[in-house]
Amino acid sequence: MRRLSRAIHLPAASAKLLARGTTPTTTTTLFARGNSSGLPPQTAERYAIARGKFQVLSQQHLDHFRRLLPSSGSVLTAEEDGLDGYNVDWLKTVRGQSRVVLKPSTTEEVSAILRYCSEHSLAVCPQGGNTGLVGGSVPVFDEIVLSMSRMDKIISVDEISGTLVCEAGCILERISDHLAEKGLRMPLDLGAKGSCQLGGNISTNAGGLRLLRYGSLHGSILGAEFVMADGTVIDVLSEMRKDNTGYDLKQLIVGSEGTLGVVTKLSFACPPKPASEAVALLACDSFEDVLCLFREARQGLAEILSAFEFYDAASAGVAREHLGLSSPLLRDDGTESPFYVLVETGGSNARHDEEKVHAFLERMLSTGRVQNGTMATEPSKIKALWATRERITEALLHDGYVYKYDVSLPLRDLYGAVEATRERLAGHPGVTRVVGFGHVGDGNLHLNITSPQYEEAIADLLEPWLWEQVAAARGSISAEHGVGFKKRDVLGYSKSPEALSLMRQLKDTMDPKGILNPYKTVP
Amino acid sequence: MRRLSRAIHLPAASAKLLARGTTPTTTTTLFARGNSSGLPPQTAERYAIARGKFQVLSQQHLDHFRRLLPSSGSVLTAEEDGLDGYNVDWLKTVRGQSRVVLKPSTTEEVSAILRYCSEHSLAVCPQGGNTGLVGGSVPVFDEIVLSMSRMDKIISVDEISGTLVCEAGCILERISDHLAEKGLRMPLDLGAKGSCQLGGNISTNAGGLRLLRYGSLHGSILGAEFVMADGTVIDVLSEMRKDNTGYDLKQLIVGSEGTLGVVTKLSFACPPKPASEAVALLACDSFEDVLCLFREARQGLAEILSAFEFYDAASAGVAREHLGLSSPLLRDDGTESPFYVLVETGGSNARHDEEKVHAFLERMLSTGRVQNGTMATEPSKIKALWATRERITEALLHDGYVYKYDVSLPLRDLYGAVEATRERLAGHPGVTRVVGFGHVGDGNLHLNITSPQYEEAIADLLEPWLWEQVAAARGSISAEHGVGFKKRDVLGYSKSPEALSLMRQLKDTMDPKGILNPYKTVP
Repeated sequence: MRRLSRAIHLPAASAKLLARGTTPTTTTTLFARGNSSGLPPQTAERYAIARGKFQVLSQQHLDHFRRLLPSSGSVLTAEEDGLDGYNVDWLKTVRGQSRVVLKPSTTEEVSAILRYCSEHSLAVCPQGGNTGLVGGSVPVFDEIVLSMSRMDKIISVDEISGTLVCEAGCILERISDHLAEKGLRMPLDLGAKGSCQLGGNISTNAGGLRLLRYGSLHGSILGAEFVMADGTVIDVLSEMRKDNTGYDLKQLIVGSEGTLGVVTKLSFACPPKPASEAVALLACDSFEDVLCLFREARQGLAEILSAFEFYDAASAGVAREHLGLSSPLLRDDGTESPFYVLVETGGSNARHDEEKVHAFLERMLSTGRVQNGTMATEPSKIKALWATRERITEALLHDGYVYKYDVSLPLRDLYGAVEATRERLAGHPGVTRVVGFGHVGDGNLHLNITSPQYEEAIADLLEPWLWEQVAAARGSISAEHGVGFKKRDVLGYSKSPEALSLMRQLKDTMDPKGILNPYKTVP
Repeated sequence: MRRLSRAIHLPAASAKLLARGTTPTTTTTLFARGNSSGLPPQTAERYAIARGKFQVLSQQHLDHFRRLLPSSGSVLTAEEDGLDGYNVDWLKTVRGQSRVVLKPSTTEEVSAILRYCSEHSLAVCPQGGNTGLVGGSVPVFDEIVLSMSRMDKIISVDEISGTLVCEAGCILERISDHLAEKGLRMPLDLGAKGSCQLGGNISTNAGGLRLLRYGSLHGSILGAEFVMADGTVIDVLSEMRKDNTGYDLKQLIVGSEGTLGVVTKLSFACPPKPASEAVALLACDSFEDVLCLFREARQGLAEILSAFEFYDAASAGVAREHLGLSSPLLRDDGTESPFYVLVETGGSNARHDEEKVHAFLERMLSTGRVQNGTMATEPSKIKALWATRERITEALLHDGYVYKYDVSLPLRDLYGAVEATRERLAGHPGVTRVVGFGHVGDGNLHLNITSPQYEEAIADLLEPWLWEQVAAARGSISAEHGVGFKKRDVLGYSKSPEALSLMRQLKDTMDPKGILNPYKTVP
């Protein structure tokens, strides 16, 4: 019996699948290996949680679903098909026991399914690419899995206004490639882009690598069509950038993790694709220097700044130790710098961009805020400079067990949280290392602690202590990963009782029987 | 008895106050003239609408409010103070009969007021700078006016992250000036900035002049504190760019026009202030050329593009005729070009920006898409190039009566709506002119028709025909002005019955007694 929302254990088997940050490139690969012994224990057994008063799936229900979805492969059952890929999350940390997966092809089918489930009190777990990291996309008990993977049509792209309209099951990478051919860019980029779906991205309010430049999905989304728990279709699929005709209903769906409705179609405002890109890797002596650099980058690089990431010496160390990635900026004595900063730019004129980046670097070197630096504009060299930053998570898994935290903090407190954690764990023999890295531009820290194996004593030192630190700084206990199943019961560290009560009221209003993604998001 | 949501009549007296577009620079000036004969008829008399079953303000209520708000000038009553400035909208088109204005100084006072009003079934009209154009900010009957003007403190500005936290009564211009001193920019700019308040901007989801560059307020807002109808304070005043801890409650408040809660504090993400600005005015032969220019500007100017506006020959003509503003781009024979485009850029490097703009202009001239053009980088010359675009609304008032429409349309249909209107009104002797101008970058058309005086026959030709055209194109019948009192009953042209029903459910959940800004927004 493990506590809810304890740090996530990343099995070493997942390591090779980790591409960028903590998110997967493919989901299929994971389950294609078919190693059932590698499956996590059932969530219902592992956590002290009671099943809701929903009906149990019967043959009669199944027959009805087969009538609703007559096309082949639309109704998968445990008897005929292995459902592990739909019941287990990508991290292999939670496992549901769903006996049926429904794959509708149209909004009407989604509506018919939900209407029936509502009438018969059947719980439903909507699922996109199943790449979430908080257990939000798989069933907890025997909820019916509503997979959106068949609703993957691109409806339209308006090249003049930069408007995309598509179905919710579209995979992010396919959309990004399609837009690139038209000179446009998806305002969202994620390591999981090869499998994650736009409906899931919206439902989890995915952050990702371009948030600093293009802002959150709340600003990029133009419209949505979604189906409420009772089957009612809400069509607010506007393609307009300005639309002040009443409450902005689509905003309710962004980040509500499938608990208020199931997204079926979406429209987005897409910016032009930059013609040139550049990356600079810089070495700094202190986090104060990192923050100074960020302020200068906001001024000097301004409109072309597209990412501002950092990692500390311990992060660089673990990547070197386990993956053999050495920094191009090692000191003369071969040691790591205390901090590395990765600055990415994207603009419409390569010469202008390079001039800006060069001027910025020269200014920073002359002020002594940067000890060393290197820059690349060719794609292969850009990739090389990203390598350590991208593979820290993967490297950490080789230490054994990883206590993972994804928090937002005011910039002035961002690295202090890492230092305070080191101090708190100082002298504890089980701790291998404490590393800090993340998105400075978004105030998003990834704090990771490793030990050879899971130790309750370390976990007890970290929680609730860390949540309390984040709460005291008015930070967020979940910056970009969401709440899902795993963080539901610690939401109170970032939300007041009044706010949680209003969340509950909204849930009860939009899903009075609570059939949509139960046990998730709302405490 | 006039129909609801009929085009707005702009009295000529307001003309001199119109600065940029259709929004005022000051509200105070309007009422300081104290010309009570210039007041519009009472809304309750003019429109067939029934007063809600709210209590009527009594001496006992007043005594209670005076105890709640003991500081001088916090409780204004009709007996002691002229309340016209709070009862009449800026356009002087609607007039309420409130007998009391409450001016709280703290969130606790707002909460105490609303708790009392809720317990005693007293209706409340929250009011910011009272610069709205749809009758949303003034009472319809005798609602208590809750003026936020005393809650005008700037709480903090984080220069590194670009985060502003302030009270809702802060005036936009003051905030913009304060941020400019710190090298930051408010992501919102409006003609009404001298009087409008940030709480009102958020409540109406104000669009304005920088939306093309910085996106909608749904993306720029980081957090909010608001008070629900029963006095409950919802504190989601996050300063974090990433915060995925449950439903994004603040988004409910954006654009809900004070009907779901009263905003008391806000936080915003503010971009760096551009170091250089440039404006180009271009003459085009067709709207197809205008759209081609826009596509090229999105590619070639890309990250420095900050506005892309257009106006037609008829718009230029009315500004020349009534205000003596002649175009710097008249043809050799002295006639107007069919279309003018105003492109504004803002970047971090003046030389780079100018090179981009020059290259863009040369390319456009060589393709024949632009017939003529001029460019400015000095503030005074930039202002001169904006002059006609900014003063079209003011010029139109000199024709007599203006039938005003603010709609969003797909770009391909944007100007077609103007041409179709001309065709529909062709030969009608009462029509002086039909003009089209607006924000191409946002798909936002301002369509205006003038006649010497109001004619029911013209109005009948325009409505509901125009709403039907907008609905058929899946446009928006209110792009940036909102719903308020005037457009409540035509919302069905842009929202489905299911969406309207969900709006009503949300309203009933968050304000079960309906005391917050009744008769507005929700049909």
